[in-house]
Amino acid sequence: MNFKEEQKEKVEKIEAILREYLPEANGYQSVIMEAMEYSLMAGGKRLRPMLMMETYRLFGGETEVIYPFMAAMEMIHTYSLVHDDLPAMDNDEYRRGRKTTHIVYGEDMGILAGDALLNYAFETACKAFEQFPEESLRIGQAMSVLARKAGIYGMIGGQVVDVKESGHQIDEEVLDFIFRLKTGALIESAMMIGAILAGASKEDVKSMQKVAGKIGMAFQIQDDILDVTSTTEQLGKPVHSDEKNEKTTYVTLKGIEQAHKEVERMTEEAIDELKKFPAGDNFLEQLLKSLVYREK
Amino acid sequence: MNFKEEQKEKVEKIEAILREYLPEANGYQSVIMEAMEYSLMAGGKRLRPMLMMETYRLFGGETEVIYPFMAAMEMIHTYSLVHDDLPAMDNDEYRRGRKTTHIVYGEDMGILAGDALLNYAFETACKAFEQFPEESLRIGQAMSVLARKAGIYGMIGGQVVDVKESGHQIDEEVLDFIFRLKTGALIESAMMIGAILAGASKEDVKSMQKVAGKIGMAFQIQDDILDVTSTTEQLGKPVHSDEKNEKTTYVTLKGIEQAHKEVERMTEEAIDELKKFPAGDNFLEQLLKSLVYREK
Repeated sequence: MNFKEEQKEKVEKIEAILREYLPEANGYQSVIMEAMEYSLMAGGKRLRPMLMMETYRLFGGETEVIYPFMAAMEMIHTYSLVHDDLPAMDNDEYRRGRKTTHIVYGEDMGILAGDALLNYAFETACKAFEQFPEESLRIGQAMSVLARKAGIYGMIGGQVVDVKESGHQIDEEVLDFIFRLKTGALIESAMMIGAILAGASKEDVKSMQKVAGKIGMAFQIQDDILDVTSTTEQLGKPVHSDEKNEKTTYVTLKGIEQAHKEVERMTEEAIDELKKFPAGDNFLEQLLKSLVYREK
Repeated sequence: MNFKEEQKEKVEKIEAILREYLPEANGYQSVIMEAMEYSLMAGGKRLRPMLMMETYRLFGGETEVIYPFMAAMEMIHTYSLVHDDLPAMDNDEYRRGRKTTHIVYGEDMGILAGDALLNYAFETACKAFEQFPEESLRIGQAMSVLARKAGIYGMIGGQVVDVKESGHQIDEEVLDFIFRLKTGALIESAMMIGAILAGASKEDVKSMQKVAGKIGMAFQIQDDILDVTSTTEQLGKPVHSDEKNEKTTYVTLKGIEQAHKEVERMTEEAIDELKKFPAGDNFLEQLLKSLVYREK
């Protein structure tokens, strides 16, 4: 099986897990379950749960204790997109080629669907306690990382600065802060949780955090590049949005050539660090490389 | 010390705990910490953390493991108010006599402050794992209840139906559903977590859920009564808002006399159930009674 086939199979596996943990739509409140499913099952690379699963396997993890955390991670990522698209935020009507959640369900349900996904992420992760009570200590550690990296010292913190500085000229330090928190934090969380739940040492968890930090940075710079070089058809969302929003990006600060170089350098460093660990296959390495050459 | 003094002292204790767990405002994202503090420290009865603490004591709980959960509970309650007040929801400019969070910080930060409080609630509750790792199993159970009762099968679920049915005539069954979930679920959560963390039996946790359900119902009906009978000065928020929003309430369905009776009946039943447990003092009973006679 080549990389693309293997990746496709893994995406399918992840989406099956997501479906398993999605709530059934029933009760007077069923519209919210529908909105959650609409936004969660809209496709996407499933990068964060994939990195989590691969890291878990890398450290010898073998049980299903990782599943609720994989689902929780993608729910958190999705809620952030749903709220990001709201009229008071980026005011986007399309994402991944489909109408955004608040366009389909109304702005009030858009807010509530985001809230519901964030809350349900923790509810879902808690299922690990019920299924693997003997691993409560480890699960508690994973839960702490999940919460911290999604919050004001992680993703939300980055989002706040991104919103606050929108339309202002910012320097490299602030841009780096936004990248590390807004995009990097969840990717760090994914790989750290994979390592923690597999029983990795504190040192190895830190090592994964470092790898993930570089991947997150490379991924975000690549996003900035694609916003300039890609087409709306390829991306499934409007291009040149950064220019339209007068956003400072890595490309506006450093130029596209330097941006390309930085993505490659970060990716190489991440792969070098990963090579210290005896992985069963080189899927993870290929996955990281595919991020550099992706066109959407 | 009389009841009012004791209650005041307990509110002060709870607010000291909230301050202890609130994040310090620093970093590029400091505005979000300020918005969190603005909304969380806006006063209020602190009913949910108070019920949690009292239930914890009722079952012999003695450590500080309950503190992060008390703070988490109030953060969840507060985030729900912040999002509830948004223009796309109830569009309220005042709460507890002060400008609402989105009026002070802007609509984008209002959304993010709500998200931040919800996420930080779980981040805060997770601190119990770090401080009391030997109680991880119990803390995991409490975390599950916290998440479930705040989510689509709890508070958010009730909120969804409330929003969806706004302006429509609804029957008693739907109104009961909204009350049980929107208001009741967090109160159940508070008392269940108090019992769980104190090591109460499953049966006793269920008993507390029952008590809390009745308190929540009484509390919500009293809210409907006050919206009709109180003044804006007393409540610190506009009265007659239900009429303005053409909302079906317990008062519009059953009349004010029946509403009063129901509040008293529910409260009596809750107190009777509580009397089965050998409480150290009668503060909890007085607290429940004070809810019936409250004017705000």
